[in-house]
Amino acid sequence: MCEANVYLLDEDGNEILFLEAVDKILPEGDQLCLENIFYEKKYINAKIKEMALVDHRIVIERIRA
Amino acid sequence: MCEANVYLLDEDGNEILFLEAVDKILPEGDQLCLENIFYEKKYINAKIKEMALVDHRIVIERIRA
Repeated sequence: MCEANVYLLDEDGNEILFLEAVDKILPEGDQLCLENIFYEKKYINAKIKEMALVDHRIVIERIRA
Repeated sequence: MCEANVYLLDEDGNEILFLEAVDKILPEGDQLCLENIFYEKKYINAKIKEMALVDHRIVIERIRA
């Protein structure tokens, strides 16, 4: 399967696993809607920082208000 | 392999293949830098509209100045 793990950058620059096995990502304004292959959904005010699909890795970072 | 095809929405809402077998995407301001598994690189003023990784499918749309 070709899902990816999504990591959230914390304030110290560490990558924290936010949601594993993500299939779908829908950006909506400042928000990302993530859905994984287990039909778990998560919403977060964040943007995509980098994606490396062959490594199954997506890094996101929060958008500060 | 878990790369994805990137489709660009045209003005009529059709999805045109923009780059196949994309591994890496780096958003930089209003620009996306795409790199595929053949080390082809493309830059475009666009944003991600939707991603469906299990379907190997990413749709982007141009950002109008």
